[in-house]
Amino acid sequence: MTLKQRDKKHLWHPLKQHQLHPESLAIVKAKGCILTDEDGNTYIDAISSWYTCMYGHCNDYIIDKTYAQMQQLDQIMFSDFTHEPAIQLSEALVKILPKGQHKIFFNDNGSTAVEAAIKMALQFHFNGDDKRSTFIAFENGFHGDTFGAMSVSGLSVYNGPFEAFLINVKRIPTPNGSNTEHILDLIKDYNAQHDIAGFIYEPLVQGAAGMKIHDAQGLNAILHCCKTEGILTIADEVMTGFGKTGRYFASDHIDTKPDIICLSKALTAGLIPMAITSCTHAIYDAFLSNDMAKGFFHCHTYSANPIACATAIAGIELLTSKDIQQNIKHIAASHAAFAQRIQNHPKVKSTRYIGVIFALDLNTKTERYGDLRDKLLTFFMDRGVFLRPLGNTIYIQVPYVMSSKHLEKIYQVIEAALEIV
Amino acid sequence: MTLKQRDKKHLWHPLKQHQLHPESLAIVKAKGCILTDEDGNTYIDAISSWYTCMYGHCNDYIIDKTYAQMQQLDQIMFSDFTHEPAIQLSEALVKILPKGQHKIFFNDNGSTAVEAAIKMALQFHFNGDDKRSTFIAFENGFHGDTFGAMSVSGLSVYNGPFEAFLINVKRIPTPNGSNTEHILDLIKDYNAQHDIAGFIYEPLVQGAAGMKIHDAQGLNAILHCCKTEGILTIADEVMTGFGKTGRYFASDHIDTKPDIICLSKALTAGLIPMAITSCTHAIYDAFLSNDMAKGFFHCHTYSANPIACATAIAGIELLTSKDIQQNIKHIAASHAAFAQRIQNHPKVKSTRYIGVIFALDLNTKTERYGDLRDKLLTFFMDRGVFLRPLGNTIYIQVPYVMSSKHLEKIYQVIEAALEIV
Repeated sequence: MTLKQRDKKHLWHPLKQHQLHPESLAIVKAKGCILTDEDGNTYIDAISSWYTCMYGHCNDYIIDKTYAQMQQLDQIMFSDFTHEPAIQLSEALVKILPKGQHKIFFNDNGSTAVEAAIKMALQFHFNGDDKRSTFIAFENGFHGDTFGAMSVSGLSVYNGPFEAFLINVKRIPTPNGSNTEHILDLIKDYNAQHDIAGFIYEPLVQGAAGMKIHDAQGLNAILHCCKTEGILTIADEVMTGFGKTGRYFASDHIDTKPDIICLSKALTAGLIPMAITSCTHAIYDAFLSNDMAKGFFHCHTYSANPIACATAIAGIELLTSKDIQQNIKHIAASHAAFAQRIQNHPKVKSTRYIGVIFALDLNTKTERYGDLRDKLLTFFMDRGVFLRPLGNTIYIQVPYVMSSKHLEKIYQVIEAALEIV
Repeated sequence: MTLKQRDKKHLWHPLKQHQLHPESLAIVKAKGCILTDEDGNTYIDAISSWYTCMYGHCNDYIIDKTYAQMQQLDQIMFSDFTHEPAIQLSEALVKILPKGQHKIFFNDNGSTAVEAAIKMALQFHFNGDDKRSTFIAFENGFHGDTFGAMSVSGLSVYNGPFEAFLINVKRIPTPNGSNTEHILDLIKDYNAQHDIAGFIYEPLVQGAAGMKIHDAQGLNAILHCCKTEGILTIADEVMTGFGKTGRYFASDHIDTKPDIICLSKALTAGLIPMAITSCTHAIYDAFLSNDMAKGFFHCHTYSANPIACATAIAGIELLTSKDIQQNIKHIAASHAAFAQRIQNHPKVKSTRYIGVIFALDLNTKTERYGDLRDKLLTFFMDRGVFLRPLGNTIYIQVPYVMSSKHLEKIYQVIEAALEIV
């Protein structure tokens, strides 16, 4: 029996209506930027397996460091103990994180990084006898699928069954260069009763919304306004972190820095699940007390897993290397040239790019999980490129190690796709 | 600088009031049942690093399988793709899971396994036009730290800042052999409006509550009652799963089987974070439709991470081996003999044991994170044994590979501790 057939017996896949899409393609090997399926077909991984494997799949340098850690210390509870991989990772991270980030709190995925951030913000105010209970978030933001994370996500795709159980959140539009004053008025209005605990946002690029890029100056004004209003700022850099936007973090493009940052995905270079919620001294200090109850009682069993920490350290070593930094610049320049090349195509409504991220919107109306999306996905896969359209958006987010030849192939299949939509 | 000193600079540990407990012990090595700190001191890991590394730390068999997978296929999205490690793991799991569990849904830790279970239960009813919004859970149950998981946890240690944001939950006492009829009346009463979506429970043993063991027959009657009332039953086997109670799952001790099971911790043998929410055909089928929105839109990026799946497969191979099964029986028999040995000690209020789990309650009143707990922890560590008291409960949950000699040493330090409390 093929893997594709065996898959159907016991596996329930996420984000899938199995009745409409009963089959999943079986991948048997991944190396560098290439995925191989069970029939031997190969595909260029043009979205880095959801923005994770930025140094290429099965990267030998990262594997060696991970394997060495696995033989030395696999797992130890992080509540009573500490270990060198966590310490070394915290030191490496603080060096590259946006100014002001000094404390590292571990958890396991983007959703739990957001849960920890929300709880930190609520308890920060609670510990200071300033009970605040509402959050502000962008329209169409996405922050995860657990109840707290779902609450702040504005992309309410199919969450009807859970709406009654979500935290109260006020939505603001993303800044577009001309609506900043309006947004600042909204924030002040929402916070008239000093009830806004925090503002959570994907800095500069909204990933799940379709790699939508907003105005950096407008975001800066929003963050500045939040600081004035006593609203904690939470940058969800799960997608944007670790070089995607051409700088280490998207927050590096914006003058006003966040109080809390959520990290995951590329943090562990596509090998092992891990996430981090980092914060300023001021946040951490608000939890220090002789009163036990003012501490932060959030924990997952594998928090700061030594193996995942070793993987993350190796990833940061590569990220900060001259080679990878040059590659990122090269890919960014290629994207800019590609945008020039296709921006006047009649099927292209608009293009945008930053760092290794490129996106175009088609001049068509499609549903997020509709027929055109399926048709395009099949078109790309048939031509050996894994691209995953979101509604009428086609986007690229390639590993930093991608060759010019593979990059050009991705551009060419996109150009070919424009002829069939 | 020592690791202990470097730790303080940037790390925020979970479940810790850093002002009262500024230091964390630095572990540099773990092998089998032994932890080694940075000064070369060794400790027997008597609680399997939070019930994870049941086949011993840095187990060569598991490491080899994990390393092999890491070189072949590190990560691939599980929404559009599938892979052999996930398929093989699902097949291995369905063979050993309690009767009726047929579908495997992946996520990353115990909290998210519970979040997925809660969402499955709510949407199961919602999809069938039977909107239900409340859960039943045991007093003092523990199910995790994300908002959904916190809601169903009855152990409300320090969650004051978050109380306003939790799902509505009705509490019932655990069955003690004489209160079953009372509990059944409570359930029927709570469900008078048919609003109870699910009952979530740690089967047979409540871990965080202090390894409290309840009555299997009473639990069976509760589960039977839930089925009659149309209430879905969710077994949280995150702590109890994979052999801890002497059978593969704690649910194996109870005739009536759950609809949904949450798995994590020992699932990946103490190497890599991963969790699973498994369920019956009936649950899965309720999400099949030509309507996309009836699907389950819950996803984490690293869901079904191939490396973690390979680790879990190796763990199940060991669990089901004759050697490990014999070890579990041997440890269970040792615990029974130890209970005999100390049950009449004047400082011992009660003892209980099942499988590799042993617990005793001291004849003293202590706070969960109080002074006696700290004194005992230090006493044990000074004698080379890592035991972590919970309030006035001292408990053991050893790796299946522990030698008789190490087991006897654990018993002896506990006996010595009884003389100082």
